[in-house]
Amino acid sequence: MTLGKYIPVLDWGRSYSRETFSNDMIAAVIVTIMLIPQSLAYALLAGLPPEAGIYASIAPIILYAIFGTSRALAVGPVAVVSLMTAAAVGQVAQSGTMGYAVAALTLAFLSGVFLLAMGLFKLGFLANFLSHPVIAGFITASGILIAASQLKHILGVPAGGDTLIEVLETLVEHLGDTNPITLAIGVSATGFLFWVRKGLKPRLRAAGLGPKMADVLTKAGPVAAVVLTTVLTWGLGLADHGVAVVGAVPQSLPPLTVPSLSPELLKQLLIPALLISIIGFVESISVAQTLAAKKRQRINPDQELIGLGAANIGAAFTGGYPVTGGFARSVVNFDAGAETPAAGAYTAVGLAIAAVALTPLVFFLPKATLAATIIVAVLSLVDFSILKKTWGYSRADFFAVAATILLTLGFGVETGVSAGVILSIGLHLYKTSRPHVAEVGLVPGTQHFRNINRHTVETLPSILSLRVDESLYFVNARFLEDLIQDRVTQGCTIKHVILMCSAVNEIDYSALESLESINRRLKDLGVGLHLSEVKGPVMDRLRKSHLLEALNGRVFQSHYDGWRSLTGAPRPLPDAVV
Amino acid sequence: MTLGKYIPVLDWGRSYSRETFSNDMIAAVIVTIMLIPQSLAYALLAGLPPEAGIYASIAPIILYAIFGTSRALAVGPVAVVSLMTAAAVGQVAQSGTMGYAVAALTLAFLSGVFLLAMGLFKLGFLANFLSHPVIAGFITASGILIAASQLKHILGVPAGGDTLIEVLETLVEHLGDTNPITLAIGVSATGFLFWVRKGLKPRLRAAGLGPKMADVLTKAGPVAAVVLTTVLTWGLGLADHGVAVVGAVPQSLPPLTVPSLSPELLKQLLIPALLISIIGFVESISVAQTLAAKKRQRINPDQELIGLGAANIGAAFTGGYPVTGGFARSVVNFDAGAETPAAGAYTAVGLAIAAVALTPLVFFLPKATLAATIIVAVLSLVDFSILKKTWGYSRADFFAVAATILLTLGFGVETGVSAGVILSIGLHLYKTSRPHVAEVGLVPGTQHFRNINRHTVETLPSILSLRVDESLYFVNARFLEDLIQDRVTQGCTIKHVILMCSAVNEIDYSALESLESINRRLKDLGVGLHLSEVKGPVMDRLRKSHLLEALNGRVFQSHYDGWRSLTGAPRPLPDAVV
Repeated sequence: MTLGKYIPVLDWGRSYSRETFSNDMIAAVIVTIMLIPQSLAYALLAGLPPEAGIYASIAPIILYAIFGTSRALAVGPVAVVSLMTAAAVGQVAQSGTMGYAVAALTLAFLSGVFLLAMGLFKLGFLANFLSHPVIAGFITASGILIAASQLKHILGVPAGGDTLIEVLETLVEHLGDTNPITLAIGVSATGFLFWVRKGLKPRLRAAGLGPKMADVLTKAGPVAAVVLTTVLTWGLGLADHGVAVVGAVPQSLPPLTVPSLSPELLKQLLIPALLISIIGFVESISVAQTLAAKKRQRINPDQELIGLGAANIGAAFTGGYPVTGGFARSVVNFDAGAETPAAGAYTAVGLAIAAVALTPLVFFLPKATLAATIIVAVLSLVDFSILKKTWGYSRADFFAVAATILLTLGFGVETGVSAGVILSIGLHLYKTSRPHVAEVGLVPGTQHFRNINRHTVETLPSILSLRVDESLYFVNARFLEDLIQDRVTQGCTIKHVILMCSAVNEIDYSALESLESINRRLKDLGVGLHLSEVKGPVMDRLRKSHLLEALNGRVFQSHYDGWRSLTGAPRPLPDAVV
Repeated sequence: MTLGKYIPVLDWGRSYSRETFSNDMIAAVIVTIMLIPQSLAYALLAGLPPEAGIYASIAPIILYAIFGTSRALAVGPVAVVSLMTAAAVGQVAQSGTMGYAVAALTLAFLSGVFLLAMGLFKLGFLANFLSHPVIAGFITASGILIAASQLKHILGVPAGGDTLIEVLETLVEHLGDTNPITLAIGVSATGFLFWVRKGLKPRLRAAGLGPKMADVLTKAGPVAAVVLTTVLTWGLGLADHGVAVVGAVPQSLPPLTVPSLSPELLKQLLIPALLISIIGFVESISVAQTLAAKKRQRINPDQELIGLGAANIGAAFTGGYPVTGGFARSVVNFDAGAETPAAGAYTAVGLAIAAVALTPLVFFLPKATLAATIIVAVLSLVDFSILKKTWGYSRADFFAVAATILLTLGFGVETGVSAGVILSIGLHLYKTSRPHVAEVGLVPGTQHFRNINRHTVETLPSILSLRVDESLYFVNARFLEDLIQDRVTQGCTIKHVILMCSAVNEIDYSALESLESINRRLKDLGVGLHLSEVKGPVMDRLRKSHLLEALNGRVFQSHYDGWRSLTGAPRPLPDAVV
């Protein structure tokens, strides 16, 4: 029972039937075909040798199948995490060196340890500190950065950099060195893939194929591009004319590798690993939840952290680099009918066979083709509509998105996402630091109190009724002190202040002290302080303090009770209604 | 009018009468006498020559009188800010060097610029990010650190360090070098000052003095200690027996000084200056508000920032160091009858006379006496009761205080206060990330809905009524998604989910997307999603989104309306009551 909770395979494995097996198997074959070019391409993006992408798809996918809870999630290298890997590892080592590969393993290891620890200590809520708009802005900016970074392969020139300006600068610098054949391959592959994505599917549907089949065939477009350009390059000997190809890839199962434990390296990779863990987890859990919801299934976020942690630690020990649940591949897996995580395990077997048997075939695969598959994949992530949507709904959210996009493009992924998180939290605190406080009055003939600025209500000069529309905590505690001080200083006729607390979900110790100080000051001025409609949990806590004893006034069940009691008004309606 | 807003002196100066003048004058004389030893002592604590303390009390106090809004606040060097100055400047220069003094000026300048900028951009709310318990913990820990750092003067040995352990270690190391005469002076001065504080006041009262007069005389205790030990040291030639004395202090008005603008130094002092500004502002505004409230006066926090900013910039150009409004001196000023900021200006004149005429008299003043006045002053700040109070009221607050105290003692003031801020914000976000969500049912015979776990209520298996007791924003958006997903997955009889939003003060863009995704998922499952009791401002915003159009259900004015509409129950009470 408990073991099943931590190792979900023990649960679903028990009822594994022949039919489930055949469904899983079909999905696995389709996903494997899609993953081969994708894995090679993402390794290229991460600045690693192509086989690292394949290796990163084998052990991690099996480990996730054992520890993860999603039935359809496909774990492996993904675009954004590959870019973040390149940015992080590029700061500590030169791409192509042994140190670079070891740093990538170490990054995967650290990231796995973080994910595992967050899962074991139930810290999955940390991922919530990334707001949806910040994620959307970050993904859009990353997509642009990734596409820009791949242009060098399309042009066949050396270029690089972590920010959009750096990338474009180095590209322009080398523009004269463009290899025309590479450019031709790159542009036609990109054009072909865009056409497959936009134009092929309607034609296949028109030709009588089912929607799912049409979708799967469309997803196989990159495979066609890979085969065509590889054959062309081989047949015409284009590699001798300066077309960069993937070259020799070792024919082997994933090797046993060991991440470095050098304290210096660990320290340098700590923050990037944390950011990669959180971004990876957020991406993965969104996909997993979307797919699970379609079948009334359930995802356990803390167990997902454990699954992803195990997958990353697996990647670290088998020549891979940081991995997470990918959107495109998971949707293909789900649509192709995968029923259990076993489909992932079969995919891993397929990729292992590919690693051993098919690697010689990609020798003549042009890097420009891989770059084209990346560009087409990531440009679908670029979506500026979030700017328009948030502008219409909430300026604070708009500001957070715009800043995240600009900072990611201008200062790289780590700065961008960190700034997004800090800004979101800062803006939230700023908003709650100036809560909406309405002066309320009695709606004539009822027991209801409404904002005096929005409704025609009864008020009395001797009673100030304030409804606080926010929890009271340290960030806004002083605001309330100032506000009441102001009001009482201006209105010398005020004899009673009643705070209506129906929307106050918490009063922390700072706010308690503020209330005590408000109470003390009002007492000095001969003004009463009363509370009404205090919530159960808030009242439980206030009872533990000295505020209620010292209160220069009373606590009323309803605001109307308070009003009636302080004005001596008659009670117009039966008790049961209150 | 507008000028008067930024330069309050133009307002109160107009109605300045002879009586106000004489009241201000009396207060100024009393405060001046109290400030002379205090200023010398705090300069010692900051690692600066004694005259820096006097200079830091002259120009700043006049500038605050012009720009500040508090009628009683006395600005100058204070204990905690002096300690923070020593910690910050000690990292970039050696105490006693010219570089040290220049760094202190630069720190005051930077801090003044920050305060001024915060005031002009109305960023005073930033100070609210320091919760009351964190401030209390920080002040207590700082008090201990300060007292410990002064023990070296009592013992007459060299010692130092930024953390309690460092200070005690170096003290123990040099314990053998203790100067017995210094120790005797230090211990008797400390004992005398404690007695003045605890024992003298009741005796003076018993002797028939008024409470205010007794208080003022008690506050003059340090002056008596200074005079007695100085005369003793001079008369017995104790300076020749190893008693460290203040020595030669230049007889002059504050000099014109210039802070350094070296980018290297500015960069190193940036964070300390920011922390000093915020801590200084918080200390100052608390005192100012407490005193203003007693006279139904009003403090404008943004204008206070401008006043304190001007004071610090003044300190930077007149040989001082960072200053703020002090608690003890402001209370004395207020109790002595100060009516306007002019009292501060007269104090400045008094101190200027002292700087020119009285400085030769302090040549033989033992440093041990100054240390004693500091120790007695700061130990009154040490108050561990905040630990007990927060433990009883809120564990999160307790945790923040305990961490702030331990980190301040163990890692110094900057780490302590930064950690306190980060922890308070983190704990607040954690709390709101798991909001209280109650399943509610109808209280029989009424229109009210209450928690099904606390009350006997009516429910229906087809309707799930949830009351969310928190604003919905990015930190808890996913929580609600998970919760509803869970509930619907478990209860297959559910046909309608109604969210009661009476305590939802905000729905940000992330929460909007979560609601859209909840709506989509529930729609796929054939379950309706309804909202009830949505607040005006929240509804205004939702109308700008697509949620209401896409909603697979309705928005009800009251939860009872929704219940009645979905169950077809009759309406038992007239409309006006709802």
